Amino acid sequence: MELKVSRKKKNNKTIIKVKDIEIGKGEPVIIAGPCAVEGEEVYLEEARFLKEAGVQILRGGAFKPRTSPYAFSGLGVEGLKILARAREITGLPVVTEVMDPRDVEIVGEYADILQIGSRNMQNFTLLREVGLINKPVLLKRGLAATLKEWLLAAEYIVDSGNEQVILCERGIRTFEDYTRNTFDLAGMVAALDLTHLPVIADPSHATGRRELVGRVALGAVAAGADGIMVEVHPRPEEALSDGGQSLAYEEFQKLIRSIKRFKSQSS
Amino acid sequence: MELKVSRKKKNNKTIIKVKDIEIGKGEPVIIAGPCAVEGEEVYLEEARFLKEAGVQILRGGAFKPRTSPYAFSGLGVEGLKILARAREITGLPVVTEVMDPRDVEIVGEYADILQIGSRNMQNFTLLREVGLINKPVLLKRGLAATLKEWLLAAEYIVDSGNEQVILCERGIRTFEDYTRNTFDLAGMVAALDLTHLPVIADPSHATGRRELVGRVALGAVAAGADGIMVEVHPRPEEALSDGGQSLAYEEFQKLIRSIKRFKSQSS
Amino acid sequence: MELKVSRKKKNNKTIIKVKDIEIGKGEPVIIAGPCAVEGEEVYLEEARFLKEAGVQILRGGAFKPRTSPYAFSGLGVEGLKILARAREITGLPVVTEVMDPRDVEIVGEYADILQIGSRNMQNFTLLREVGLINKPVLLKRGLAATLKEWLLAAEYIVDSGNEQVILCERGIRTFEDYTRNTFDLAGMVAALDLTHLPVIADPSHATGRRELVGRVALGAVAAGADGIMVEVHPRPEEALSDGGQSLAYEEFQKLIRSIKRFKSQSS
Amino acid sequence: MELKVSRKKKNNKTIIKVKDIEIGKGEPVIIAGPCAVEGEEVYLEEARFLKEAGVQILRGGAFKPRTSPYAFSGLGVEGLKILARAREITGLPVVTEVMDPRDVEIVGEYADILQIGSRNMQNFTLLREVGLINKPVLLKRGLAATLKEWLLAAEYIVDSGNEQVILCERGIRTFEDYTRNTFDLAGMVAALDLTHLPVIADPSHATGRRELVGRVALGAVAAGADGIMVEVHPRPEEALSDGGQSLAYEEFQKLIRSIKRFKSQSS
Repeated sequence: MELKVSRKKKNNKTIIKVKDIEIGKGEPVIIAGPCAVEGEEVYLEEARFLKEAGVQILRGGAFKPRTSPYAFSGLGVEGLKILARAREITGLPVVTEVMDPRDVEIVGEYADILQIGSRNMQNFTLLREVGLINKPVLLKRGLAATLKEWLLAAEYIVDSGNEQVILCERGIRTFEDYTRNTFDLAGMVAALDLTHLPVIADPSHATGRRELVGRVALGAVAAGADGIMVEVHPRPEEALSDGGQSLAYEEFQKLIRSIKRFKSQSS
Repeated sequence: MELKVSRKKKNNKTIIKVKDIEIGKGEPVIIAGPCAVEGEEVYLEEARFLKEAGVQILRGGAFKPRTSPYAFSGLGVEGLKILARAREITGLPVVTEVMDPRDVEIVGEYADILQIGSRNMQNFTLLREVGLINKPVLLKRGLAATLKEWLLAAEYIVDSGNEQVILCERGIRTFEDYTRNTFDLAGMVAALDLTHLPVIADPSHATGRRELVGRVALGAVAAGADGIMVEVHPRPEEALSDGGQSLAYEEFQKLIRSIKRFKSQSS
Repeated sequence: MELKVSRKKKNNKTIIKVKDIEIGKGEPVIIAGPCAVEGEEVYLEEARFLKEAGVQILRGGAFKPRTSPYAFSGLGVEGLKILARAREITGLPVVTEVMDPRDVEIVGEYADILQIGSRNMQNFTLLREVGLINKPVLLKRGLAATLKEWLLAAEYIVDSGNEQVILCERGIRTFEDYTRNTFDLAGMVAALDLTHLPVIADPSHATGRRELVGRVALGAVAAGADGIMVEVHPRPEEALSDGGQSLAYEEFQKLIRSIKRFKSQSS
Repeated sequence: MELKVSRKKKNNKTIIKVKDIEIGKGEPVIIAGPCAVEGEEVYLEEARFLKEAGVQILRGGAFKPRTSPYAFSGLGVEGLKILARAREITGLPVVTEVMDPRDVEIVGEYADILQIGSRNMQNFTLLREVGLINKPVLLKRGLAATLKEWLLAAEYIVDSGNEQVILCERGIRTFEDYTRNTFDLAGMVAALDLTHLPVIADPSHATGRRELVGRVALGAVAAGADGIMVEVHPRPEEALSDGGQSLAYEEFQKLIRSIKRFKSQSS
């Protein structure tokens, strides 16, 4: 049986519209923001900067999956409200993670795109739940998910009725520990071939090292990514989570310039 | 900070009592049953056989996490009722998986031990939810979880108020594809040292090949496992899931004899 | 102690000259050829095509490491002679693998660059031996080598007296089996930072699938690779080895055009 | 085509005789010694202890493969002479590693069993070379070798004329970094089924942690290993290599007692 997410079932690319942005249409989309929403003032300041820098979609975690029960796990609904405020001010859509099937409704009220994180890629009840809403879902590849499992996770959402799925390659777990994960460039390219869904790259989680983020992002775009999602923080060294992989403002601006140069050249 | 699950925090072994069975007391406990509860008649027949064969705890999936949305995903509440019936008839406690935080209450009504599957090892909202009940939880190691992440997942449950956690090593994902997963014997032994919680082995999922299950189980017991959990099916070739790794009756009886011989010798 | 291959020991990039080609100088170098030298006529035909297409260095295996003792293992010295003939005709330098310390001398007589294959990355006696000659060495990353181990393997060669080492990322072994290996883009970028040696990419072995080779190559170049090494075969379906990952002529020409367009744009 | 190492080609188990020891005959063989031969006095002292403790074959490295070119790489021929002296005094056979095809002859003069290390499992010229001699070869599984590749490496030796191959599972490389490698118990059991060659376990390299060695060794024996190879050092904290995984004398004596108890019970 051919999967609903397969190119063999539907050959023309799925384009996902969020406000006036079209993901999957050729131009790589830039999603950026801090790992977690840490407070209103800092988030709004950052949102304004990102808007200015050319970002098209804001990211920020309100519900944060954390390996340790004692780590900062996000501001919850308070964080959702800050995201909504940032959206209002900048006019940019926002993406944020949902971890619990019981939270799908409320997260859907505040966010434009719901993210399913790596650790929940095979949380099948959650996949079914986001399959019932009418909002785009950004589905991260699991820490150790094969391509096939990743596509089947997307199939859960599509089969439940929601075709608006964006796949996100964010590195897989291997023996190499210099980087946080191993960014699977070829896996991303294969996903672009096998499915009609948009596929983006998250070089921040993939590498875990800010000095590598920019070049990996550029490589992903050159290989055909429909977008990139990058962690940016005004003061990475003070971030409550993922500081080591967050770009500072000037680093991010440099990345944006490289991508724009690349895009203008390829067109 | 020392974790609550750590030997450094509490040196004496946690013993988990389920009816008259004590897990973690030295004698390896035998948990067995089919992958999924497929129907009342077949399950009760099997339960009687397993009781006869010396099994102490019955297993069987009512809610089945499946990689594909089109695979058999269990009988749900109907399956729970069959498990309860088997418990009534045999007097044996039952363990079954819970996948959704909204199902914790109902699964807890029917089962003696709630299982968190590999794919949900970092489903933190589910971990918190089973941390609020007063029933033992069998926590399987994630497909690609490090020892540290596995113990931190257990910490979520204990920190939420439920100390009755049984760890279960079920193989990790590696490049080796002859076996379904790679059984991490040394990881299991290390978990026995690092934590005061009981640690058992699941050689069925670890190997995915019935001809290897018995010897891997025996190796785990010899290395100190507090128990083993094995898939058994009256007619493995007809199983709706995991037939290839399920032991037929006579194979299982042979394994039980080996373990009994080993146990009598070590005491 | 800082390694001799480290940027901390010597910050300025090592540029390796082979005839009039300079590897590491900024412009990505194109190395191409069939997996194995299969015969004089076919190799010379291909060499002429590759020269025409813009290739700067020819590759071709005379001594082939093969997993099975019964697979085609190359033409040996006969293959070396064919390579030398191709070099004479096209004027292009050639790179070929050496597997045995006793063959270093003879391979060095025919080839311009000696390749150490993945399986021999920690063949320390072979590393020492190619460290004693005055020819560039192309050192492939091992199947499961960490960055650190890869750099230490290079250190063996440099410490033995030969500074002309080119590192080649060719994919690492992970659980993902859709691709032959997992191309480690971030690892390649990190190697470019950590060492002063040139670092190139081999998308053919990394992916094992010809339809992915071109985009992975382009991604590697965009991320900063000093060159790429690609398998090309006039009739991939007839290749004695690695046919599935070899580009046909027209596919290769398309890749060359993409890279040229990219290069002209970035300069 | 069936491999020469396959059970399908030859069903009856290959038994390898070294002096009066028979490897593969049912009784697990104990091989022990320090990682490296560090000097005559200390090695002879240890050899006497090991003989006394019940060891059947002595191990000790004279040529040591080391990740770094600056690490202690063994005493070379001087080390071989010390091994020969230990053999003379204790009457026990010795096993030692050979890394270079040019050294096969001289190592064969001093040692009873030649070891091919993990890093050389696919050093095909070395495999061919040890296939030409009339001495048993202990072939370690590669760091990231599949079962199939491991058996094909053995096939190189057998196909070259030497049927006396002992396979040694020593842990594979995975994402888990608490242990040095991941001991693949099921892979060892599968190798026992797939091939007629003896298969032993090396829990020292597999775990890299002395506190885990004993229980992993016992698990391997219970699962059917034809023997174990263990690193022992009179003062592990002073060892020039692998001190962290070497058993002290009293730890080793305890392990020997456990294995003897296990053996007497299973017979």
